[in-house]
Amino acid sequence: MASAQSAAVAAIYRTWLAGPAEGDPIHDQRQWDVLTSEPGGVDYQEAEVAGSTAWWVTPHDSDRDRVLFCVHGGGFVSGSVHTHRRMFAHLAKAAGVRALVVGYPLLPQGAHPVALDTVFASYKALLATGVRPEHIALAGDSAAAVALFGLQLRARDEGLPLPAATMPISPWVDMEVTGGTMETNREVEALFNQPWVAQMAAGYLNGTSPRDPYVNALYADLTGFGPLYIQVGGHEVLLDDSRRLAEHAEKAGVEVRLDVFPEMQHTFQMMAGRAPEADDAIARLAAWVRPLLGL
Amino acid sequence: MASAQSAAVAAIYRTWLAGPAEGDPIHDQRQWDVLTSEPGGVDYQEAEVAGSTAWWVTPHDSDRDRVLFCVHGGGFVSGSVHTHRRMFAHLAKAAGVRALVVGYPLLPQGAHPVALDTVFASYKALLATGVRPEHIALAGDSAAAVALFGLQLRARDEGLPLPAATMPISPWVDMEVTGGTMETNREVEALFNQPWVAQMAAGYLNGTSPRDPYVNALYADLTGFGPLYIQVGGHEVLLDDSRRLAEHAEKAGVEVRLDVFPEMQHTFQMMAGRAPEADDAIARLAAWVRPLLGL
Repeated sequence: MASAQSAAVAAIYRTWLAGPAEGDPIHDQRQWDVLTSEPGGVDYQEAEVAGSTAWWVTPHDSDRDRVLFCVHGGGFVSGSVHTHRRMFAHLAKAAGVRALVVGYPLLPQGAHPVALDTVFASYKALLATGVRPEHIALAGDSAAAVALFGLQLRARDEGLPLPAATMPISPWVDMEVTGGTMETNREVEALFNQPWVAQMAAGYLNGTSPRDPYVNALYADLTGFGPLYIQVGGHEVLLDDSRRLAEHAEKAGVEVRLDVFPEMQHTFQMMAGRAPEADDAIARLAAWVRPLLGL
Repeated sequence: MASAQSAAVAAIYRTWLAGPAEGDPIHDQRQWDVLTSEPGGVDYQEAEVAGSTAWWVTPHDSDRDRVLFCVHGGGFVSGSVHTHRRMFAHLAKAAGVRALVVGYPLLPQGAHPVALDTVFASYKALLATGVRPEHIALAGDSAAAVALFGLQLRARDEGLPLPAATMPISPWVDMEVTGGTMETNREVEALFNQPWVAQMAAGYLNGTSPRDPYVNALYADLTGFGPLYIQVGGHEVLLDDSRRLAEHAEKAGVEVRLDVFPEMQHTFQMMAGRAPEADDAIARLAAWVRPLLGL
């Protein structure tokens, strides 16, 4: 059974799905970070990377050579480096490495390919600092998966090295919004429904084909990509995105781990420091990625 | 008339006064920081100061020699360096100086004199870093006023230099809880009532006289203290604490400015970046303190 804390997340998500109240600064998805505790023992340095605000997240006593390159979700319409600062800080602290949390323009300015261009430019900026690609792992939730895979396709196109590993959290990759769990998880999902996801997809695609590999990893050639660890909640309408992504990557020879967390909601890891399931998930990610970064 | 954003604060405060809902991570005063925007262009470094977690807040391009020594409020029972990080960051950014946001143990561990001892030790630790006292200004909200004045009495006792200025925000100093506005503002106040304030006072005093000058600045000799700028909301039950504090300090020859913000609630400056009244208040504090710090 979901913990009381995780059940509270579902209740909050349902208020967001119903729409924010006018002038109410709390019942608002922009306040997503209220879910996450401050991990403690972590410093934050704001920087401009590829024209967007970014956070350098430095856990005390962390490795200085390894970096988690983190991209926030929010369906291309919400989320920011601020809403996700603490979640990625928990992950960085658990992994004992620094994190670079990058931003990108939201819709309508960020419609494809602008968001991807920005995130790819940020990845190149990180490489330009001298961090070795085998010391970089990617992490991101929800819509960030589009950028996590798209930037690796772009890197391959340009002959740039790929990172050591990728950690999509509740990834959304199917821009056709055709997953069977859109229907079968409709009643238990708290945050999304098919029409809303389809609306965000249309906004991001802005005319691009929903099967374009740079926006939809299910149509991308993932050959040669590093190990992939997907985490997803069992109650998500996006659950099938994770299952199909895992299957698709395995067929391309990618090493894949998929953990489905029973009864959990979309990006439940935002409850890091507050809900046991979130702390468990963060700990699993950290333990998985450390050896891949040579730690 | 209060802005819509400031009216929303009153609505939120009323839910806190009613008591937090079980397992609800949002309707909880521990989430006070949801009110405050991230100011941007500010770095944060966590440190342990006097045994408590503290934040060094460094606005980009800020003066490196001046420091705001900031103490959070919360009635000795809530609040933390995390809930107040962004509000003090707005103030530091507006003033163009760094801030040190210090913590202290809450009740029951933090009963007098433990909280004051900790904050005083933090002030001495700041002096020990080589920052000149004339380059330090104090700021703090609500119950923090007890520490802001208490630490200066302690400094004077020990022959240590006093800071350049003090900025109490919605100060609570009367441990007897006798202000006339406890009754006259009872209906318009959103967060407090007389019984609750009296309960927090009893918890903090823990047997100490409510007229002890180290817990109640209205009974302290403030002669020789630096300039004082008090901000308070017109709808607060604690409004008379500010008025009496201003009068008491003036009698001691202290230069005093008191701004009463019509219709505002307790520590409405927490809406910095979101409500015009909060931004106005922060801007006034910054403009007032800069010349006192030699800027």
